[in-house]
Amino acid sequence: MRFIDECLKDIKDRGLYREFKFLSGPQSKYTLIGNKRVLLMTSNNYLDLCNDVRLKDAAEAAIRTYGVGAGGSRLTTGSYELHDQLEKKIADFKNTEAAILFNTGYMANIGVVTAIADKEWILFSDALNHASIIDGCRLSGAKIVVYKHCDMEDLRKKIKAYEGKKRCIVTDGVFSMDGDIAPLDKIVELAKANNLLTVVDDAHGTGVLGNRGTGCVEYFNLKGQVDIQIGTLSKALASEGGFVAGSKSLVTYLRHKARSFIYSTALSPATIAVSLCSLDIVKSEKDRRDRLLENTKWFQEELKKLGFHVLESNTAIIPLIIGSAEKATKLSEKLFEKDIFISAIRPPTVPDHTSRLRITLMATHSREELKYVLNGLKEAGMELGMI
Amino acid sequence: MRFIDECLKDIKDRGLYREFKFLSGPQSKYTLIGNKRVLLMTSNNYLDLCNDVRLKDAAEAAIRTYGVGAGGSRLTTGSYELHDQLEKKIADFKNTEAAILFNTGYMANIGVVTAIADKEWILFSDALNHASIIDGCRLSGAKIVVYKHCDMEDLRKKIKAYEGKKRCIVTDGVFSMDGDIAPLDKIVELAKANNLLTVVDDAHGTGVLGNRGTGCVEYFNLKGQVDIQIGTLSKALASEGGFVAGSKSLVTYLRHKARSFIYSTALSPATIAVSLCSLDIVKSEKDRRDRLLENTKWFQEELKKLGFHVLESNTAIIPLIIGSAEKATKLSEKLFEKDIFISAIRPPTVPDHTSRLRITLMATHSREELKYVLNGLKEAGMELGMI
Repeated sequence: MRFIDECLKDIKDRGLYREFKFLSGPQSKYTLIGNKRVLLMTSNNYLDLCNDVRLKDAAEAAIRTYGVGAGGSRLTTGSYELHDQLEKKIADFKNTEAAILFNTGYMANIGVVTAIADKEWILFSDALNHASIIDGCRLSGAKIVVYKHCDMEDLRKKIKAYEGKKRCIVTDGVFSMDGDIAPLDKIVELAKANNLLTVVDDAHGTGVLGNRGTGCVEYFNLKGQVDIQIGTLSKALASEGGFVAGSKSLVTYLRHKARSFIYSTALSPATIAVSLCSLDIVKSEKDRRDRLLENTKWFQEELKKLGFHVLESNTAIIPLIIGSAEKATKLSEKLFEKDIFISAIRPPTVPDHTSRLRITLMATHSREELKYVLNGLKEAGMELGMI
Repeated sequence: MRFIDECLKDIKDRGLYREFKFLSGPQSKYTLIGNKRVLLMTSNNYLDLCNDVRLKDAAEAAIRTYGVGAGGSRLTTGSYELHDQLEKKIADFKNTEAAILFNTGYMANIGVVTAIADKEWILFSDALNHASIIDGCRLSGAKIVVYKHCDMEDLRKKIKAYEGKKRCIVTDGVFSMDGDIAPLDKIVELAKANNLLTVVDDAHGTGVLGNRGTGCVEYFNLKGQVDIQIGTLSKALASEGGFVAGSKSLVTYLRHKARSFIYSTALSPATIAVSLCSLDIVKSEKDRRDRLLENTKWFQEELKKLGFHVLESNTAIIPLIIGSAEKATKLSEKLFEKDIFISAIRPPTVPDHTSRLRITLMATHSREELKYVLNGLKEAGMELGMI
């Protein structure tokens, strides 16, 4: 396997080597890396629920009642009454007829796209779609037409250029590394006018966007107008797993056709219990979302005042664009010295020359804590000659 | 989405409609479906550990210390010290330099094959390989050459027929729906003689085969001779997740290149704690494996005496071949009336006309319980005119 050593050498030479940081405490606004206490500013635990005592109690109760592993795939012995309850609760939350669980968002995207599309299909895919959508599109064998990121004029042109009976637009709701929201209202309009199917993966919008926190479909007031909604339980919802919400027949179809659903051991009962509980919290605690979005808005403005290049965002994700991978890594390391944990995101996760710090806020970050981070960024940015 | 309704109608017409059975109790040799207590004879919980109090305690302790969801991907905020410990423990268990976790076995297979192979590769794949291997091969873009199930003469011929520098044999260790073991010694011999890479997914062998229970590589005494070992924590190990074990450079390479590893939220700390604990149990309680294999051997012989068509198996999986999907479903239903839960496995999970009951044994099934099942099978088989 010499090709492996050659590839690793190349990765190191290009400054793209990746190492783990191991947490020794819970995922909350403060956590422990080894013995070092750091302010966590780069987690997808947007509502700061991962260490919530209600979720922990729910998990423990499920373990006592149902044990640990699920023991089988969903269609053999791995379906528990909790799975049934959660699928119904997700459908209710997402305002759809039905929903179906997958082990991860990655598997949901792979499963859905390959179950729906084959080589007779044309898939219009946003240039910045998540890797799991891209992999799903590739595995389906469909013709993939990539349109410029959120560019509706480009999408319109490409829809006109690629005629066909079986066509579908697939997009992230919130883009994970940019934090912007897909113009879903316009996408739906284009889809309707041209008779295309719509698939939206709202991994980072679920639990965050919309008055009820249900995501980008609610945010754009598009109830019943998106054919297939994908989402995750592992971000704002502080649990694990992905899902698809849509019509009853869609969900029944996926149960029979989505290979990543069929050929995998079900999620553990404890995980399902956590999701059931966190959905209730999201529904009842609107103030968490409000505080999260307030934090984001304020912090974003302050970052710009410092002179950083910040992408416009209406979500919890604030990308601070650096450019070079090496510089992004250095900035992240400097901050870590100041007990602030912000991941540097480098190619291939983001395009070349757009390495960044992916700052994410939590509902519970106080103004004071955020000021500490701003000060740290200012100092580190000046030391490194970035601002 | 009219194609969906048409497809569902076709599925119903062909007797291939699938519905869930929801468990309301733990995955153990007895479980509850609603209020009905049934003997579970079709679970992958081979060692009957899913409801083991030690695993439950380990999960609860992890929840108290680390919270519930992991909150991020492994390369951002989702790596806990438990993940580090588990990866080291798996490497030790599998007798390799290193190991890396994936969220599911499906994601491990997809991730490994696409990270290793591209369109310049030729992948020799067993005809009965698991869906996740097939999907990984397809997604890689490599040339796929399917060889007849466990047929070394066919594999040899195909290796000769498809010359090339980058070639790889990929196989299940234990075939999930047939229960037989790949002739790994001969596969390794062929690979060495022809300079091919070897990838083995030992999902159903891990925790079951070999003196130490480490799987098919140990069973064939092939330490250090298989390049890439894949496995799962969700079957004999009663937890959740998949892994890859191999050289340090392979594991480092996968950390950088396996998209299903990179682009997914990490497994929850509690899940990792369960795996850590069950690996210890597997190592220290050899008698569980012994009893499991004794049970399988005895039960298999008794089934044959009854006149059923049973596939030869040296593992916990005993396929009782029925043929028609409808008959397999009927037999499964009859047994369920007698409080015995055995799933009918139908196309596309198995080839057409090979529908079957997939009987799996647990270490804890008593001779008396197995006799009850044999009697149930005899009665139901006679009622349905099968024996």
